[in-house]
Amino acid sequence: MILCLLLIILRRFMDKRFNTLKIGILGGGQLGRMLLQKAVDFSLKIRILDPDPEAPCQHLAEEFIVGDFSDYNTVYKFGKECDLLTIEIEHVNVEALEKLEKEGVLVYPQPNVIRIVQDKGEQKLFFKKHGIPTADFSITKDKNEISQIPEMLPAMQKLRKGGYDGKGVFRISSTADIENSFDAPSVIEKLIPFEKEISVIVARKINGETLCFPPVEMDFNTEANLVEFLYSPAELDKKTETKAYEIASRLANTLSIVGILAVEMFLTPEKELLVNEIAPRPHNSGHHTIEANMTSQYEQLLRAILDLPLGKTDVTCNAVMINLLGEKNYEGRAVYQSFEEAMKMEGVYIHLYGKKNTRPYRKMGHVTVTGKNKEDAKRKALTIKNILKVTAE
Amino acid sequence: MILCLLLIILRRFMDKRFNTLKIGILGGGQLGRMLLQKAVDFSLKIRILDPDPEAPCQHLAEEFIVGDFSDYNTVYKFGKECDLLTIEIEHVNVEALEKLEKEGVLVYPQPNVIRIVQDKGEQKLFFKKHGIPTADFSITKDKNEISQIPEMLPAMQKLRKGGYDGKGVFRISSTADIENSFDAPSVIEKLIPFEKEISVIVARKINGETLCFPPVEMDFNTEANLVEFLYSPAELDKKTETKAYEIASRLANTLSIVGILAVEMFLTPEKELLVNEIAPRPHNSGHHTIEANMTSQYEQLLRAILDLPLGKTDVTCNAVMINLLGEKNYEGRAVYQSFEEAMKMEGVYIHLYGKKNTRPYRKMGHVTVTGKNKEDAKRKALTIKNILKVTAE
Repeated sequence: MILCLLLIILRRFMDKRFNTLKIGILGGGQLGRMLLQKAVDFSLKIRILDPDPEAPCQHLAEEFIVGDFSDYNTVYKFGKECDLLTIEIEHVNVEALEKLEKEGVLVYPQPNVIRIVQDKGEQKLFFKKHGIPTADFSITKDKNEISQIPEMLPAMQKLRKGGYDGKGVFRISSTADIENSFDAPSVIEKLIPFEKEISVIVARKINGETLCFPPVEMDFNTEANLVEFLYSPAELDKKTETKAYEIASRLANTLSIVGILAVEMFLTPEKELLVNEIAPRPHNSGHHTIEANMTSQYEQLLRAILDLPLGKTDVTCNAVMINLLGEKNYEGRAVYQSFEEAMKMEGVYIHLYGKKNTRPYRKMGHVTVTGKNKEDAKRKALTIKNILKVTAE
Repeated sequence: MILCLLLIILRRFMDKRFNTLKIGILGGGQLGRMLLQKAVDFSLKIRILDPDPEAPCQHLAEEFIVGDFSDYNTVYKFGKECDLLTIEIEHVNVEALEKLEKEGVLVYPQPNVIRIVQDKGEQKLFFKKHGIPTADFSITKDKNEISQIPEMLPAMQKLRKGGYDGKGVFRISSTADIENSFDAPSVIEKLIPFEKEISVIVARKINGETLCFPPVEMDFNTEANLVEFLYSPAELDKKTETKAYEIASRLANTLSIVGILAVEMFLTPEKELLVNEIAPRPHNSGHHTIEANMTSQYEQLLRAILDLPLGKTDVTCNAVMINLLGEKNYEGRAVYQSFEEAMKMEGVYIHLYGKKNTRPYRKMGHVTVTGKNKEDAKRKALTIKNILKVTAE
């Protein structure tokens, strides 16, 4: 009852004043950058915390504070100056966020959600506990324990903590590979044959309202273990699509997350959907929403955490998203090859992340290609992929 | 020949290095703000000069310099630190820009274009000289001279210099109104009956290539003398549309402008198009291009001045744009009424300009409403207009 009243007061307060709230974002990478770009339209006051003084968010926020978001004191001090905190990376100090939450700072997504997602072991245990379909797995402390579960092979080894952007993942095809695996706490996930990998981003507000973005399909670059092409919308039968929405919404509700949650799923040949990983923040699989959906994932995150109405997520056109990765043999000051040629093409939207230096497979930007139909967009995306390269001086 | 060679070298240089150029923008208002928002995608280094330390561009540029863009020394000093200069307001010091241009700084639009546009008398004389259709006019020094041309009445008086956002304009219906008119150098323009007012934004590159945005239709609030509703695309017969493109392109070519030029035109009952005013910068009549055209006017300006290929300008959906003006009787810290209600509506894109204080008719933001068709968009825009209000605390 009192909670209800408080919520009503809070909502009234936020209706008129959401744009006077001091908002803090932990992380100043490309996801934060695109979030800031959108936040301009709502005239929000945003502070960024990132250890890199040249991070992509530099110069774009009201305040850019150089500091380690995994350090308790740094996060606590940063958060005490904010009314509302969110993240663009999950490797942040959760203890500080928990303390801030107790002291009345709004932390969305909530610290307990971030805690689960930070640890791939906890993630998998959470899926299991709540009946969320996922591939079989074991949790191991070290290399030695992997040898004791040969029945799990072939498998993907995923470090429980700290993996990011394709790092911290190792394929163990047979026992012979174990000696080269990570000797650290891991999830050993049975390799499952799958038809495609899809992703659904779901937004959830404090009142429990959820809304999903239409599913997208992802094509991986196995060498870099990063998404190479992403197709929107995914080609799925109606039943599978409904199941995907159901799983994503159930996850969001079970976590009680306020914000957005990206849910990556495998579609097996038997048309089963198995959750691979979740991320409680803007996600690589949602970049295309800037040009190809009625509301972007960045705007949706702002709407969700500011308790504003969620925006319609309908697809407005076919799109293919390509990550612009640093070329393999180049390191140093980035140079964009054939940028002009790429810009000549119709429906090509280039987003550079403002990173001065490139290195192999570093995410330097992305390109969303829209088209009259899927084939048209795919054909153009392939051309872009072949000509637009990030090399070094 | 040498010029050609230089152009080729410059283009090669800019292909790889356009994002290392130091770009300066004179003016830090909402037009600059939306330009910066887009410039993020191209990772451009941008400096802003504006006299208001709380201007809309504050916190969004690599450097924000507080200074008077109409002052010779301030502009010269600012420009000397730049490789390329552009404007988001035309009331800037042209002498400094001319000197900078001579000293090798790229100034787009060129100072001679800005000089013509700054003075509404020069604008009209330019139209006349080059056979650009425009309403009859006289140029007057003071009130007294207006009395000597009763045959021009009813007329609009426009101050030759300094008018902006609906200011500096006065309607002289009969000789009785002359005593209340501005006693300053003016253009006295014969009032012409017109069916509608339209606008075409044209981009032009250094190689002479031009590309127009589809025409839009404007509905004025006569009290504030500001656009109240803007419809995209305009409903015009093919012949008139072609004529509008022809006039806009001819103007751009005659001026040899590099950048974008907004061309406002009256459509008379005889289907004649008469140029009202031009602006060599992003324009209020192009805000909707962010959501409703393949390329926005802001991106097109960047493409034009960076000598990148111009983007397709096709309309992607029907749109209505509404300026969000400060309510008549409110002054002080801005409060947005029914913001949440407006955000509940589908296809409603709100852009706030980050101005702390409101005053009557101040441009505080704009809203672009997209719809299945024109009627749908119009209906929603009317609702927005009736509920979304900017008042003060």
